[in-house]
Amino acid sequence: MTTTQMAEMIAGTPRGFAPPEALAEARRSLLNWLGVAVGAADHPMVDMALAVADLMGGHEQATVLGRRRRASLLTATLVNGMSSHIFDYDDTFLDTILHPSAPVVPAALAWSEWRSLSGMELLESIVLGIEVAQRVAQVVYPSHYDRGWHITGSVGAFGAAAAAGWLMELEAGRLANALGLAATQPVGLREMFGTHTKPYHPGKAAANGLEAALLAAQGFGSSARAIEAPRGFAHVTSNQPKLQRLTDGWGESWQILHNSYKPFPCGVVIHPIIDGVARLHRERRIEAPDVARLQLRVHPLVLELTGKTEPRDGLEAKFSVYHCAAVALLDGWVGLAQFADQRVTAPDVIDLRARVNVTVDGSIAEDQAHITATLHDGSQVDVWVEHCLGSKDNPMSDDQLESKFQEVTGRVLPPDQTEQLIAAVAGLATAPTVGRMIQLATPPEVQRNG
Amino acid sequence: MTTTQMAEMIAGTPRGFAPPEALAEARRSLLNWLGVAVGAADHPMVDMALAVADLMGGHEQATVLGRRRRASLLTATLVNGMSSHIFDYDDTFLDTILHPSAPVVPAALAWSEWRSLSGMELLESIVLGIEVAQRVAQVVYPSHYDRGWHITGSVGAFGAAAAAGWLMELEAGRLANALGLAATQPVGLREMFGTHTKPYHPGKAAANGLEAALLAAQGFGSSARAIEAPRGFAHVTSNQPKLQRLTDGWGESWQILHNSYKPFPCGVVIHPIIDGVARLHRERRIEAPDVARLQLRVHPLVLELTGKTEPRDGLEAKFSVYHCAAVALLDGWVGLAQFADQRVTAPDVIDLRARVNVTVDGSIAEDQAHITATLHDGSQVDVWVEHCLGSKDNPMSDDQLESKFQEVTGRVLPPDQTEQLIAAVAGLATAPTVGRMIQLATPPEVQRNG
Repeated sequence: MTTTQMAEMIAGTPRGFAPPEALAEARRSLLNWLGVAVGAADHPMVDMALAVADLMGGHEQATVLGRRRRASLLTATLVNGMSSHIFDYDDTFLDTILHPSAPVVPAALAWSEWRSLSGMELLESIVLGIEVAQRVAQVVYPSHYDRGWHITGSVGAFGAAAAAGWLMELEAGRLANALGLAATQPVGLREMFGTHTKPYHPGKAAANGLEAALLAAQGFGSSARAIEAPRGFAHVTSNQPKLQRLTDGWGESWQILHNSYKPFPCGVVIHPIIDGVARLHRERRIEAPDVARLQLRVHPLVLELTGKTEPRDGLEAKFSVYHCAAVALLDGWVGLAQFADQRVTAPDVIDLRARVNVTVDGSIAEDQAHITATLHDGSQVDVWVEHCLGSKDNPMSDDQLESKFQEVTGRVLPPDQTEQLIAAVAGLATAPTVGRMIQLATPPEVQRNG
Repeated sequence: MTTTQMAEMIAGTPRGFAPPEALAEARRSLLNWLGVAVGAADHPMVDMALAVADLMGGHEQATVLGRRRRASLLTATLVNGMSSHIFDYDDTFLDTILHPSAPVVPAALAWSEWRSLSGMELLESIVLGIEVAQRVAQVVYPSHYDRGWHITGSVGAFGAAAAAGWLMELEAGRLANALGLAATQPVGLREMFGTHTKPYHPGKAAANGLEAALLAAQGFGSSARAIEAPRGFAHVTSNQPKLQRLTDGWGESWQILHNSYKPFPCGVVIHPIIDGVARLHRERRIEAPDVARLQLRVHPLVLELTGKTEPRDGLEAKFSVYHCAAVALLDGWVGLAQFADQRVTAPDVIDLRARVNVTVDGSIAEDQAHITATLHDGSQVDVWVEHCLGSKDNPMSDDQLESKFQEVTGRVLPPDQTEQLIAAVAGLATAPTVGRMIQLATPPEVQRNG
């Protein structure tokens, strides 16, 4: 299978191709992505990126989400992609660890806004762009990721180029050139995890993908064998690439149906524990003061990746199963508030986390956990998590995605506007343009005093 | 040796550090680079890149060389870096195959122009930027190149970030962040050779490096171990990296002293043959009509890389030792005119190239060739090329570099302006700004008829 064949598949995909279930999942992906992008838009690293962009100048073509301003297509794409990855709370293909929306949606959205395209066109371009990014990810995973590539940035540009190129109605030869330009500039080393540069990866990948489509539209040339050639993307960045994944079974089903969403803003490996402990609180009505000991039986990776016993701030707390278990029992949920620095150092959290014990068990799957609370009276309460919330077999419901949306946008948008924005995403398939949705994704003007 | 140490070396390099011989080589590198950038500025791919940039808009901050216009810092950097690599006629470090000026100089030049920095600051930043790019290249070469990375694009951003960061007087911590941002976005697959995307590589690398320095100046964070970490640049893109090359012997000598310049606009492997055959013409006064047979004994790579016997156009002729030998004898030199399509298909060239015979000989080095012309009267004339022009042991003279400059800029600049530009580069070390040189690198206004 070849780059050219993939380009032909993209170019040959007609408007109206996406079945209802793919469109529904595109709406869910968009809602989830929009929430985390709007919610993180006031982060200082966004100010820094905008300062550099403003030094260059540019037309006001597309909206910077969560802010009352616009920027050039490429700047808006870069910044929106970056914002959406800051919380580490975006969507994931569990089989490749690709976070597909962050590098794909901002490119499609900026182009759709600028060209006044319909909501349906945006939704279908998201289905298609995510399809391409995930297929390229499947070609190179796992060796690509194991070597140290942050796959979300390093294959993201393929998806952005495909989505934007399809919206521009590029013919197959030009689409192949766009894929070639995406192939030649992978962004993202895993060494950057824990720094500003990590969220920069999907932002830059999205901008590179959009630029690739724009250059290709001008006639800019590239290799027609960019992915599969001996010195092409797949062989240069992975071992034994599975090239058949490029187009195998194209159109029979859509990858977006396998997309998953994080219920909690931390690594997926802790999710079963949070899910189980929160159920102790909510369903079994266990109160922290009554608990003498909280015993966790978990998959071995949990302690390897998140074994920090005494986290000092929110960032460290994301790598502490002890913190997550304690705060889940105390608060009944783990959201952004539970990773605020002051919550991490709160006396009740510190007190309870000292009573958390963790045992690894090789028979427990990654989406499972066994929780036992021993109360002061000696009695025990058990919870078994068969498939944790947000996993393939237990996806987040629409209601849960909306609750998450309210949580992450809460600092930026007033509640009634959040409700309107949720409704705008729900009705996007029949919206003549994406303008109303984007307008709702910017905060209201601040009232001046006096 | 570490990224942080390299950043400390850069930050600790004071103004006025460069010895006279390094400054002299920086002037030669700049002259060579400026010529090929100005000369190729009217290529259609430059129009395409500018069309995409103009769609975005931006301030007029820096000059697009060879054109009567300016663009934003990042756009000018991208386009000038691209132009300078279009002719495949730029400078080379023969031990890493890095073309150092293309990704480094445009970033330093755009920043120097915009900030009205002195000619000396530009020259020193070129010495420093090339130092950093070549050292990173030495860390990862040869496995990096063998895998398929176009090293000029994939390590170029380090040099651009260093040059720009030094001009901005970033402190070591921020310089390390700039190197980190450069590390995380290598540009350039060798699969792109022969397409527009090849010259795009150094242009985008230069722009990425300048953007990295600008972001770092804002406080944008990155890994302090971006190059040497297990999932950092060196281990992800090469085998057994030679990390000691990052800072070993820093300041004892300067890499730019080993820079070399192409006398002929084609791969270096054919250069000894062109050099030798041209000497048959010039020194031995051999005329093509008298020659029955032209016998070449050459290094084995020559036929492997350039064995095309019947090239159909200028691009194919670059991969034909037969064409190059024939045209060198007919015209006494091989420049851009000898790769024009009509010269490649001229009857005298086609006639003579059929009389060229090539024998490979493992005892002949890459910079050597043995040429024997057998005349119709049966007599033979020999030329032995010990070290071809442009090689380490036979560098191009200043006069030869100036002749090349006149050749490449001839289509764009009038002869008197070319002379003034050569003089401006020669006097750059005492120029208060780079403005006059840049003004001379733009074509005069076209006279309107009527």
